[in-house]
Formats: sequence, structure tokens, C-alpha cells
Amino acid sequence: MTAHPAPTADSPLLKTEVADGIATLTLARPQSRNSLSEAMMAALTGALADIAGNTAVRAVVLAAEGPVFSAGHDLKELQGHRDDADRGRAYFEDVLKRCSTLMTALVRLPQPVIAAVEGMATAAGCQLVASCDLAVAGAQARFCTPGVNIGLFCHTPMVALSRNVSRKHAMEMLLLGAWVEAEDALRMGLVNRVVEKGSAVAAATALAHRIAEKSQVPVKLGKAAFHAQIEMGLDEAYAYASRVMTENMLARDAEEGMSAVLAKRAPSWEDR
Amino acid sequence: MTAHPAPTADSPLLKTEVADGIATLTLARPQSRNSLSEAMMAALTGALADIAGNTAVRAVVLAAEGPVFSAGHDLKELQGHRDDADRGRAYFEDVLKRCSTLMTALVRLPQPVIAAVEGMATAAGCQLVASCDLAVAGAQARFCTPGVNIGLFCHTPMVALSRNVSRKHAMEMLLLGAWVEAEDALRMGLVNRVVEKGSAVAAATALAHRIAEKSQVPVKLGKAAFHAQIEMGLDEAYAYASRVMTENMLARDAEEGMSAVLAKRAPSWEDR
Amino acid sequence: MTAHPAPTADSPLLKTEVADGIATLTLARPQSRNSLSEAMMAALTGALADIAGNTAVRAVVLAAEGPVFSAGHDLKELQGHRDDADRGRAYFEDVLKRCSTLMTALVRLPQPVIAAVEGMATAAGCQLVASCDLAVAGAQARFCTPGVNIGLFCHTPMVALSRNVSRKHAMEMLLLGAWVEAEDALRMGLVNRVVEKGSAVAAATALAHRIAEKSQVPVKLGKAAFHAQIEMGLDEAYAYASRVMTENMLARDAEEGMSAVLAKRAPSWEDR
Repeated sequence: MTAHPAPTADSPLLKTEVADGIATLTLARPQSRNSLSEAMMAALTGALADIAGNTAVRAVVLAAEGPVFSAGHDLKELQGHRDDADRGRAYFEDVLKRCSTLMTALVRLPQPVIAAVEGMATAAGCQLVASCDLAVAGAQARFCTPGVNIGLFCHTPMVALSRNVSRKHAMEMLLLGAWVEAEDALRMGLVNRVVEKGSAVAAATALAHRIAEKSQVPVKLGKAAFHAQIEMGLDEAYAYASRVMTENMLARDAEEGMSAVLAKRAPSWEDR
Repeated sequence: MTAHPAPTADSPLLKTEVADGIATLTLARPQSRNSLSEAMMAALTGALADIAGNTAVRAVVLAAEGPVFSAGHDLKELQGHRDDADRGRAYFEDVLKRCSTLMTALVRLPQPVIAAVEGMATAAGCQLVASCDLAVAGAQARFCTPGVNIGLFCHTPMVALSRNVSRKHAMEMLLLGAWVEAEDALRMGLVNRVVEKGSAVAAATALAHRIAEKSQVPVKLGKAAFHAQIEMGLDEAYAYASRVMTENMLARDAEEGMSAVLAKRAPSWEDR
Repeated sequence: MTAHPAPTADSPLLKTEVADGIATLTLARPQSRNSLSEAMMAALTGALADIAGNTAVRAVVLAAEGPVFSAGHDLKELQGHRDDADRGRAYFEDVLKRCSTLMTALVRLPQPVIAAVEGMATAAGCQLVASCDLAVAGAQARFCTPGVNIGLFCHTPMVALSRNVSRKHAMEMLLLGAWVEAEDALRMGLVNRVVEKGSAVAAATALAHRIAEKSQVPVKLGKAAFHAQIEMGLDEAYAYASRVMTENMLARDAEEGMSAVLAKRAPSWEDR
């Protein structure tokens, strides 16, 4: 939340930096409150597609410049289609489809994604945080699903939110559209850690490094399996997780890791 | 929890008051611990049906007179059917069907319902709280699913409870049948707020007013969509929520609300 | 965590003690960190099968000797099959099947099971805790799903863990493989109580006694119904729970318990 230079027309919407196996995606339109415009969604979705295919990236940090992590959809862009022949229906459907594609891309990305939230995360911006695997909040971060205040309930953010926090907490956020402070977000389970103001990126990056040091075989198998099994009944989930675990056991890195721990030495991962 | 006049035979079981778009339903049989007798269930179910069709009501507060919010089913009434030819089976089935109808009527009611709990909420009384969208507890409110203590597990309250709090918490309440204090209910997520003793109705009413000030289009679409999507897998939930959101966007109040926020003016809702 | 005598080859892997209706199962291979070897899994599964058929047992405490509650699978045993013709696949599949059978046996056991955790519960050892109905932790108990650190994600422990705690909490444990202290496990909902170091067995036994004093009719019907209904949608869950509750109402102990409470006398259970 330090001062940032005024972006020019050419400055990227989304800054992507890869270092030491960590990709850091930074929403870089603070002057537009990092809204999820069509262009921003396309940039994010594209960056995630690149990362999915980049085995050099072992974990992802999702951050933002300026005091607003992301304010959600670009209302001006949406309103611009009110005069379409269908009053915007086709456009709205298309935008929401792109948005759901983006949010599920975070869930389906092979690598874990850690949100680093310093400022306000509202509506689809809050949904971004809920869709990440882990989240770190600076002490002054705040969360909100305020659609209800402008006549447009946060229906799609609700999908991610209600899978992160308990029903009464989700309902409170959605029906009141009021701010939730970082400490309350921690209590509810929407974020994993609250750190000093200005330290969220550093803390998220530190977590990303801890994940990046591990073999990527279990990390990738595990993240994918988590989301698959959570939608199953108990017996089906055990049968599924057992199949995945057998495959994991037969991977070279599991054999190496298990040998290493028995020999009390550090493991050496195939992919490092 | 101030003294209340002794109700006469003619005094209503359930007091209904509508003011400023808020319906306040008050269980008014403190001398019977506001038990969910057949008559009380019928009164509540009837009141909810009226409210569902009354667009002047924008939010509901569910309160109770006396030191017991509700003690759940009327045991005397249930025991009265032990001598039926079928030992009560048909009667029990019927009572439970009416009870589930009542509880799901709270969930399915278009308007949000806020429980205001000052005293003890036990068994189906606790289920009422769990079935509301939001809940406010006075500092001395207490919660319990004590059926296990009298040979009759709180099976149907469990359905609502286990969708509000985590498994170990739900199991603890159900297997021990012990009191849970307001602060613990807050920690578990069974209630949203704990307020000073005697202030629960005022606090719940204040929340109801905040909801009533909003356009009812997103509130009603959102509440219904919450309960629908929570039972779906992620992809189905996003597809469903996107359809609902498109309809919401095409509603007059969303157009107005979005215009208002872009113009930095207060929105004016169609239904006010 | 007092000193324990060095076990001999003949000392049982698992100590089973039944007193006052409480079965206490104690993992008794502290020198092997109570790992879930084939032999230990067989001993536990066998003990649970015996308890399932023993109506004198009304509740179960699951404890462990030594500083490690259980370290999960026996890595040496698993590694021993790397030279099998199929590189261990058939063996791994078989071990995981036995493990899932054990874990679901805890869930399906008619009697409630309370984990008493004093030391470290890791991997499938943590899964044991998550699979119990209730859990008490000594102040120095710690929890971990560290598979990710040795190349083998805790896929099957994840099934139980992710049904106990919220998604971001589960993901944090699974992706970082770091220790979770008792107080954090309490906050997350993985355990019900944290007690003074060395008091977990006593506290769990006290809870078991409270359950054992109740009629076993509602306890057994209720535990089974809990796990059945939690996987259903709301309407199906209510229909199911209502059927179970009708059967419960028609049981002798419900009639007795309801009579007793109306007569303000103590109930007398059929099975005591």
C-alpha cells in the first residue's frame, strides 16, 4: 500500500513475476480498484493457463496493488450493455461464464494458490480470495459481499464463500453486505493468517516457498484430490482417495521420500 | 425477560406484529415454555405462509416471551398418543411431518428470518434457531439438544444443527445433551452475535431493518439461491448461480442500483 | 505420558479394557510410535468388531501410550514391498483398503468413540482422531498431516480431516504438513476439548461415562443417523430423520424417558 506510479495505457493489467518457483500475480489497476473487467479476467485466466503448463512454477501468490485488492466486476462495463437488443442478457451470461471459468481455474490449477490481501476484497474480489487454496490478510484487509446493497446479490461469490465459511457467517455477509475485518475473517475461516499491515505478500510468499520446497508430485495430486473428494460421500471418497494414494505411492518421489525419512536423511526430489 | 401478564385462554399462542416492513413473531406461551405443540406449530406455519405472500414484509424476527425461547415438542401431547391402536406411530409421523414442514418453511420463506434468543432454546427450539438465516443471542441464552437424556435422540433437530456447526461440535451437543452457552454458540457458528441480556430482540430488529432497507429483489433471489446451490457440486453451483445472477442483473432494481453507485447517488428501489 | 514398561514380544499391540460400560482401547507400541502397522490395524479393527457386538459396551475411549498418539502407517512395512513384481501396487491397495475399513469402522461403530490424545497424532494417526465422534486433547497434543513432506500426500487422512474442519484449515494442514497445536485444533473444530497435559484419558473417560449413563437406544440410533443424514440434501435428510425418530419414539426407553421427565422422576433404562 505504498505509493505506486500512475500506470500508463501500456502498463500491464496484471504483473506476472516468476522467481524461485513462485509465480506472483499482481492485479495492477489500483486506479480502477483492480476490478475484474473483461480485460482483467482475460489476463488472469491467461496467466493461470500459462502457469498450469509451466512445471517450473510450484506455487502461486495472488496479490494486488493499491488499497483495494479487487472490487469485483466492472460495473461500468456491465451497464454499458443495458442498451443491447436483449438488454444485456447475452453479455451478462458471457461475463459470468468467464468469471466462473476464472474462479474454477484457481481451484483446478495444479499448483496451490495463496491470496495475499492487504486492502478491500469485495464481491468477486472476495470470491477470488475464497477460491484460493490459502489466504493471508494484512491487519487492515477487509472483506465484503456488498451486491445486496446495489440491487444485485453476490450470487456467484456466494458459491465460493459458502464453501469456505459456515452458513450463518456466509448468510450474514451476503444479506447485510457489511465489512468483515481481517480478524473476523480469520475466525470464520475465510483466511488462514492475519499479519501486520503491509506484510501479506511477504507472508504469502513465505508459505509459497514452503510449498515449493516439497515434491510437486504429492502437492499436485493432493490439491486435485481435495476438490474431487470433498463432493463425494464418505465411502466413495475413501475409495477414490485410496486409488490416488496408491498412484502417489508408486511415484518415484514417494519412494525417495519414504526411504529418506527411514534413513534419516533429506530427500532429493526428482523435479528439483 | 421482564415479567409478563398471565395469558388467558384467548391470548394468542403467537403474537404477530408488522411495523416498518418487519414482521416480529413472538412465541407467547411462556407458561408452557413455548413448546412446539400442534397448535403452536400450526400458528407458526400459518404466520409464515401469510408472510410469504405479504410483500410488505421485508424481514422477520422470531422471538419468544419468558425465560425459555422454546423447549421443543410438547411431550405431554406426544405421550397422549401412546394408547392409540398403533401405539402412536401415525400420530408421531404426522407431528414430525408438520415439524419438518415448519422448519423448512423458515428456510424456504422468501424473506430472511432472524432468531432473537434470550433464554433456553432446546431440542426443536434449538432447531428453530438453526433453521433461521441469522441468529442473535442475549448473553444468557443457552442452547441444547437434550433428547438423548430422555431416551429420544434429537434426530430432526440434528438435521438443522449439523448444517450450522462442525461435526465434532454437533456430535458433542447431540451425544451429551448438555447446555451450550451463548459465547460457545457464537464460537461454533450457531449464532451470529451475542448481545447484552435483554437486547436480543432490539439487535435482531436492527439487523432486520438493515435488510429491509435494501431492494427485496436481491434479498429474495439470494436467500433462495443460497439454499439451492449449497447442495450442489461446484460446477453445477456456478452454472446455477450464474443463471440466477443474470436474472437479477436484468431486474429494474439492479439496473437502478448499479446506475446509482456509478453516479454516486442513493438508489431508489421499485418496491419502496 | 508416564514411563511405561518396555513391551515384550508378547505384550499386546492394543490393550483393551472394559469397565463400567466403557471400553478403553490403548495403542501400546510407543517404541514404534504406535504406527498403524498391518498388525495394529488388524488389532484395532478386530477390537472394534468385538465392541460392535458387545452390548455391555456403551462408549469407547481411544488412547495411546507414550509421546506419540499414532504416527500413521508403518513406512518400513510399506517400503518392504517396493521389490514386489508389481512394485508394491497390490500391497498398497490392500493396506489402504484395510485402513479405510478401520476408519469407517470407527464411524459405523454403534457406540460413540472418543479420542484421548496426549501426544503427536500424525497422518493416519490424525485421521483416527478425525474419525472419532469426539476428541479430547492434552495441552501438549499436536496434530499433523505431514505426508506432503515425504512425497506422499495424506490423501486418505484428508477424507476425514476435510469433513471435520473448514476448507482453508484443511488445505493448510495438508499443503504445509506443519504442526497444529492443541489450541489451534480446538479453534478449527478438530477436537472438542483441550485439558491439562496428562488429563486427556481421564477427561475422555468422564465424557464416555456421561454417554454411558444414557439409554443406548437413542445413542446408537442417533450416531448412525448422524452420518447417514449428513450426506443428504435437506428434504431427504428431514424425511429420513423423521423415520428414525418415529422408530425411536416407539422404543420402550423413549416412552419411559418421556414419562419420567413429565413425572419429574429419574428414568430407568431397559438396558441397564
